[in-house]
Amino acid sequence: MQRIILESKVLRKNDEYADANRRLFEQHGTAAVNVMSAPGAGKTSLLEKTLHALKNDFQIAVIEGDLYTTFDADRIEATGVPAYQITTGTCCHLDARMIARAVAEFRIVEADLLIIENVGNLVCPAEFDLGEDLRVMVCSVVEGADKPQKYPLMFQTADVILLNKIDLIPLAGVSLEDLLSNVRKVNPSAPVFALSCRTGEGIDAWVNWFRHRVTGLRKREVHECA
Amino acid sequence: MQRIILESKVLRKNDEYADANRRLFEQHGTAAVNVMSAPGAGKTSLLEKTLHALKNDFQIAVIEGDLYTTFDADRIEATGVPAYQITTGTCCHLDARMIARAVAEFRIVEADLLIIENVGNLVCPAEFDLGEDLRVMVCSVVEGADKPQKYPLMFQTADVILLNKIDLIPLAGVSLEDLLSNVRKVNPSAPVFALSCRTGEGIDAWVNWFRHRVTGLRKREVHECA
Repeated sequence: MQRIILESKVLRKNDEYADANRRLFEQHGTAAVNVMSAPGAGKTSLLEKTLHALKNDFQIAVIEGDLYTTFDADRIEATGVPAYQITTGTCCHLDARMIARAVAEFRIVEADLLIIENVGNLVCPAEFDLGEDLRVMVCSVVEGADKPQKYPLMFQTADVILLNKIDLIPLAGVSLEDLLSNVRKVNPSAPVFALSCRTGEGIDAWVNWFRHRVTGLRKREVHECA
Repeated sequence: MQRIILESKVLRKNDEYADANRRLFEQHGTAAVNVMSAPGAGKTSLLEKTLHALKNDFQIAVIEGDLYTTFDADRIEATGVPAYQITTGTCCHLDARMIARAVAEFRIVEADLLIIENVGNLVCPAEFDLGEDLRVMVCSVVEGADKPQKYPLMFQTADVILLNKIDLIPLAGVSLEDLLSNVRKVNPSAPVFALSCRTGEGIDAWVNWFRHRVTGLRKREVHECA
């Protein structure tokens, strides 16, 4: 019982920071995107591909959440997009307060598009609103077709779901049809893209959708301000 | 700061339960094994193979930790070994108190070998001692060679590390050599087995080591009691 009370207090406090972040992003016309997945599902590879495609369309900043290393931030910086590192130590997710601090410290709101790469974890990050406009969930097909039922909150709260590593399907013995069907059981409406960051298959469709969505998010803000 | 104090309180309480579990397992000569990995790395597939091989050598019980579903428990029961389900809801790890309750409720200490399949998560389960004798860590090679550095606590605290899905290496573009080298940087001494639950490659070597280790753990207990 005590655990539940503590948890809801932590989440309430988080939501206050998330609301403040959201207001700040709205004021500055910054579209904020939270990218989540299990460890090794391909978030950083996806960002590398996405940043190469979009870095001339938007002024982009990336926040990298990692337990200890700067491996991912280094990979992002190599694309020419600035990456700001949040090292969480043993903390298994980013929270809205960490984002608020990073945004203040690094003047991130000058960007059109802020992409936040969360800690690799299919459980806890789903519970923490960061003040983002869009939740992107990456699932490696190699994890198995049962993952939507086993980690439903992550799949339910995603605005778009990317099924990565489809080039491994022939060898992995996973059915994309089963995985898609299981995704639909927990999230009937989110757009789903099947792709491979390694071969590039399906990347264009994702990037085009994402470009359009980010543009829409930024226009909407302008509308609301007018 | 508040977060850290709460955390250490939670962990201290957990350690008390873990110590009590350990004493109980010792008294009954039950070897307790905690199996951990990221989502979809293959814990349940590994257990299916391992249980088929060892179910005539030991009286085995399995505790299945899952957020919501009984998918894994159903797969374990299909091997003929009893599985006891702990559904954690939004909690991202098993803790020692959950194990204590399950052990009391289901008379699990009558088993020679208790295998606990933790929630799929590379972060939080590493911090929670369940009172186990042996920590088994499963890493899917498809997650990438950088995982030992990115999730060091899990790799450091493992007594044995299994690198699963090696059949996918040719397609996945991951170097087993790099992964092994990175494992050794954070854990220089734990035995490492490269295997594939899908093809069966490497399973015999793992099962033989595990049989020997469990036998040793149980003999040691008898020694200590004598």
